[in-house]
Amino acid sequence: MANPSKRSLLEAVADHGPLSRSELALRTGLSKAAITGLSRELIQDGALQESETAPSRQGRPSILLRLNPAHGYFIGASIVEEPVTLVLTDFQGAVLGQRTAPWSNDPQAIAGTIRDSIPHLLGEAGIPADRLRGIGVALSGLVNHDQDRCLHSANLGWIDLPVAAVVEQATGVPTFLENDANAVATGERLYGLARDYRTFATVTFGDSIGCAHYVDGVLYRGHGGGAGEIAHCTIEPGGLPCRCGKRGCLDTVAPRQAILAQARGLGVSTVAEVEALAAQGHADAIAILHRAGAALGLAIAHVIQVNDPEFVLIVDVEGAMGPLFRTVTQQAIEANVLPRLAASTTIRFHHATRALWARGAASIAAHRFLTRAEEG
Amino acid sequence: MANPSKRSLLEAVADHGPLSRSELALRTGLSKAAITGLSRELIQDGALQESETAPSRQGRPSILLRLNPAHGYFIGASIVEEPVTLVLTDFQGAVLGQRTAPWSNDPQAIAGTIRDSIPHLLGEAGIPADRLRGIGVALSGLVNHDQDRCLHSANLGWIDLPVAAVVEQATGVPTFLENDANAVATGERLYGLARDYRTFATVTFGDSIGCAHYVDGVLYRGHGGGAGEIAHCTIEPGGLPCRCGKRGCLDTVAPRQAILAQARGLGVSTVAEVEALAAQGHADAIAILHRAGAALGLAIAHVIQVNDPEFVLIVDVEGAMGPLFRTVTQQAIEANVLPRLAASTTIRFHHATRALWARGAASIAAHRFLTRAEEG
Repeated sequence: MANPSKRSLLEAVADHGPLSRSELALRTGLSKAAITGLSRELIQDGALQESETAPSRQGRPSILLRLNPAHGYFIGASIVEEPVTLVLTDFQGAVLGQRTAPWSNDPQAIAGTIRDSIPHLLGEAGIPADRLRGIGVALSGLVNHDQDRCLHSANLGWIDLPVAAVVEQATGVPTFLENDANAVATGERLYGLARDYRTFATVTFGDSIGCAHYVDGVLYRGHGGGAGEIAHCTIEPGGLPCRCGKRGCLDTVAPRQAILAQARGLGVSTVAEVEALAAQGHADAIAILHRAGAALGLAIAHVIQVNDPEFVLIVDVEGAMGPLFRTVTQQAIEANVLPRLAASTTIRFHHATRALWARGAASIAAHRFLTRAEEG
Repeated sequence: MANPSKRSLLEAVADHGPLSRSELALRTGLSKAAITGLSRELIQDGALQESETAPSRQGRPSILLRLNPAHGYFIGASIVEEPVTLVLTDFQGAVLGQRTAPWSNDPQAIAGTIRDSIPHLLGEAGIPADRLRGIGVALSGLVNHDQDRCLHSANLGWIDLPVAAVVEQATGVPTFLENDANAVATGERLYGLARDYRTFATVTFGDSIGCAHYVDGVLYRGHGGGAGEIAHCTIEPGGLPCRCGKRGCLDTVAPRQAILAQARGLGVSTVAEVEALAAQGHADAIAILHRAGAALGLAIAHVIQVNDPEFVLIVDVEGAMGPLFRTVTQQAIEANVLPRLAASTTIRFHHATRALWARGAASIAAHRFLTRAEEG
């Protein structure tokens, strides 16, 4: 796949497929003759397959090209939250299996956990070991541009660790790292709700808050990998002290941990219980959720004012966001964005389990496999 | 210049020149033989010239290539603030002449003003009319991606006007529009303080506040041209009513107009006078400048948290920012950015006259001329 035209065709199918050869010619700018030749080769390689015929406006069936799901399989591992979550996906992003394992911040232990999980995940899905093409690891922290080193993670206590090499040594499989929010954005861009958008932001909301940007179809990591650090936007100037050393960060009032800390006196242990109290009219519960939703909405409004994305996907992880919280968040976004920008930005809320990070991690490995011509 | 290799060479010289042929080979990935041939053609075309020899480490002089300043001349016109400001620049961005003219929001009147200024600007600089290659117009508002229509400008009262065509018809010269902040960012990227940065933000501070982003060497306009609208970030929730319909926007407390509105009772008419009162210990003047600087610093901190630029250039237009204001702004940025991000972001303050928008507008025309192979 060293041929750039082949890669451009493959990427067009990955981004927008299934597509007919005529649609591919339009999207890639390649001639129909070139598309015919290249797609024949990609089908022979096993990367593409012809798909069901779709009725066209003229009533004639047309042959569509799509990624061959069996062309490669990928394991994604999330060490973002406890427990470690692992998934096996195919080349189209379908999740074929999932496991959990005890969390650790020891790279050797994590590499061992991943190595030990591989035969289970492949075996249960009936996939031969030689079709495993890559491993992705999602973590909370900064990752370098080559996606092989963790530059900094407060959560894991890591500073400049070559984690990908440790996992590769244990498993013999090419491994890539990514920040949790960037992994989710890539998964949604390749396989999920952001497939139709080139310029969008994702916000993940759970024990902590992540944010990532795609600009014109490319993940925007920032100069030092720090783009999307909205958890430490100052939202309440002079507010609560934050573990980062500042005050009033979004992180101090909005994520699950912050809500439960504020609700300590209410005898609750989940955000759902705070929502239930609020639904019964409990003034403190209502105030806590209003404060959290207003803060999250204001931070997202800043993202929209600064970057003008076409689409913002807000992913609620493991039910961290109940109905009142969501309503307040939505209202706070609308109240703090220029009406013109608000009208042109699509906001969508989406529920997910913790497996979304592992799926995002697998998408990083799949994307590197898809574009590996760049490296050769 | 339809050859992409030629364009890539020309862009490398524009971005980083003067450069030796060896440096150009490194930057463009072209072979030294290709560089030799292409640079010969570009020198024959008149686009490049050989420059003074610089002593190398081995003590041998090396020949550098640079843009030929006389290859093309450009007029930039700013209708951002009163009066209309026009400049003439050469291909290297040097300003050869400047004029002002009465402001208007009538496109025909603006086109007439530009047409009438051309012979004066060219004549005073001794430039033949056929070397004028393009006109750029900077305005406050949204411009489409093709840089020929103003989509929306509250300031000018325009909605979807084909302004470039009107100016072209009056002058016979290719004309391109750009938002004020985007024009300044492009001017600084091509000719100014941002030449060495690929991922940076500019903030212009005067009667109003603009912001623009470059991402990996490319102007990032946002999905609908609205990226950088930080003037309407909510900085004081529930604060003063803003002309946009929201409350507490940066625009209500920080720009020159907002400072002077708050200082109405102090008998002053310029920000410099407010600064002078503050220097004498006048509590109200100090409070007004603290409020404005804290608001601007917080908004810039949001930009850094959201996008992690390598460099933020804060341009003070016509002395809107005095020493106290600047100190408070700088402290507010530092207080509201993660220490790690603060350490990796270079912040620079810079004074400019109103001509910076006209110079930015000229850089838009020069950049379009430089890259015109893309359009053919």
